[in-house]
Amino acid sequence: MREVTIGLLGCGTVGQGFVQLIDRERERIRAREGVDLRIGRILVRDVRKSRPGIDPALLTTNAIEVIDHCDLLVELIGGVHSAGAYVRRALRLGRDVVTANKALLADSGRELFNAAVASGARIGFEASVCGGIPIIRAIERGLAGDSIESITGIVNGTCNYILTRMEESSADFPSALRLAQERGFAEADATLDVTGADALQKLQILSELAFAGSAHTRLRVHGIDDISRQEIEQARSRRCVVRHVASARRLPGGVELRVERRELPESHPLASVRDENNAIIIRARAVGEMLFVGKGAGSLPTAAAVLSDVIEIAGAGSSAARAI
Amino acid sequence: MREVTIGLLGCGTVGQGFVQLIDRERERIRAREGVDLRIGRILVRDVRKSRPGIDPALLTTNAIEVIDHCDLLVELIGGVHSAGAYVRRALRLGRDVVTANKALLADSGRELFNAAVASGARIGFEASVCGGIPIIRAIERGLAGDSIESITGIVNGTCNYILTRMEESSADFPSALRLAQERGFAEADATLDVTGADALQKLQILSELAFAGSAHTRLRVHGIDDISRQEIEQARSRRCVVRHVASARRLPGGVELRVERRELPESHPLASVRDENNAIIIRARAVGEMLFVGKGAGSLPTAAAVLSDVIEIAGAGSSAARAI
Repeated sequence: MREVTIGLLGCGTVGQGFVQLIDRERERIRAREGVDLRIGRILVRDVRKSRPGIDPALLTTNAIEVIDHCDLLVELIGGVHSAGAYVRRALRLGRDVVTANKALLADSGRELFNAAVASGARIGFEASVCGGIPIIRAIERGLAGDSIESITGIVNGTCNYILTRMEESSADFPSALRLAQERGFAEADATLDVTGADALQKLQILSELAFAGSAHTRLRVHGIDDISRQEIEQARSRRCVVRHVASARRLPGGVELRVERRELPESHPLASVRDENNAIIIRARAVGEMLFVGKGAGSLPTAAAVLSDVIEIAGAGSSAARAI
Repeated sequence: MREVTIGLLGCGTVGQGFVQLIDRERERIRAREGVDLRIGRILVRDVRKSRPGIDPALLTTNAIEVIDHCDLLVELIGGVHSAGAYVRRALRLGRDVVTANKALLADSGRELFNAAVASGARIGFEASVCGGIPIIRAIERGLAGDSIESITGIVNGTCNYILTRMEESSADFPSALRLAQERGFAEADATLDVTGADALQKLQILSELAFAGSAHTRLRVHGIDDISRQEIEQARSRRCVVRHVASARRLPGGVELRVERRELPESHPLASVRDENNAIIIRARAVGEMLFVGKGAGSLPTAAAVLSDVIEIAGAGSSAARAI
């Protein structure tokens, strides 16, 4: 049985969910994949903070210790500066990396992938876009034999939760946002979500995968922070709903990226996507249109996506003969 | 550039679509995956039959010639007897195999996977279930980090096409079936489709992947061939639709498999799946519920799924350093 030691950067809700999930699924993974996953050191800011289910002896404030003493690094601290430096160090040392960090990938994805190729390391990032939906694999692998024409979707669960609340009640934007924050579907500072910046980062990652090498033309990024009740009511009077839609499509001159509110008829596949769910419609030349719907965020869905990457990378050496 | 010679068994609509797709996507695949895919010999019954876009010089009626002179075998002849013998020979010789043959996998999947493990060959079968939807990868890889609780879906496009026609017109079952046959959504002999046998085979493949090793308890298989107009009308009067639903769920004593007609409220995610489309809902412990919708069959969607497997297997040796 091959043993793989995982270094973990960050132990917030996703990190704790990840450790919990490994505890729960370890035996199944050993039996099915022939890999024994162990958590090595865990980087945190404050080792004294209580974290249920986490062995305090694993905690450290020293990132180098975590990176240098692992086989595979899981990066869950977010942001681009420290996270970028840690991931670069790991790749230089030939450590495989799994990350849920969409900002880092949108910012320096190409450079990191090149660094991985140079050292023979691998990068998994399924969790960076649409948490629980295995959309990265669908684009990179499932559609490897086809040419993708467009990607259209709801990729920010916070915005969708707010729009659904406004649709189902008489709430205006500020009170729907407050509700999202109270229920844990929005951060205290939801600026990145409600301005469309988060959706754009995710769209950039998907677009880079689907249209690798094409010149990008960013046409429009619009959030939901200036939405009025009137807009919701007017849509309803036309039997429509408002959704915050990210889209990328291949055009003769490059790729057009848009993040914007759209009024969609109730019968549109994205109109029935409610609350914090995410959805992606991919149109490809041979396959036609495909729809994927699922939870876009949350501790356990994101942790499960991270773990699926860890298993694929860690198991790669030991299962060459398995069915693909 | 690594060159991979593909032996092709069968050159019907999917086979011709596959050759056409390789022609169209070859350059993209060379650039992106570093593999040059070439069609070697093609097994057909009648070499004189006209097949647009296929070089007649590649055709042969000798299966051994195709199998022994390829790096990777694509099996598209269907059925379990000849197809099974050819696939077994290829695996014994260490050739990788990609197949769209759900009957063969449902019949002898476990034995074939064991043969592959013994010789170090790989088997790809994304195209065997729900053609264009990359559902095999989603279950095997995307959800590797999670425990699947149930799989529920519309996996037979012929049945769904017939039910949709009955819903939208005053057609009874025989005339809706005839229409499906005229439009190419049903075979001349649609018995396997309308009795639920085809859906059961697909469900068995998905269930084997999701619940590997569990004892199976087949509880119920029911087709759509005895459906009446009355059943459709009664559902409509309750704002419901009738769908042919395949489901597998984990129970304490094993796995329950059901293939049956269900009356679903119009708001149910499967109710909006129309015509020849397929859909799968997967419920997993950490990720919650996910929905996948897309074309379940057709020459090009199925060919694209076959090609995605070919690329993944053929590219495996040359792209260890790629991002996963």
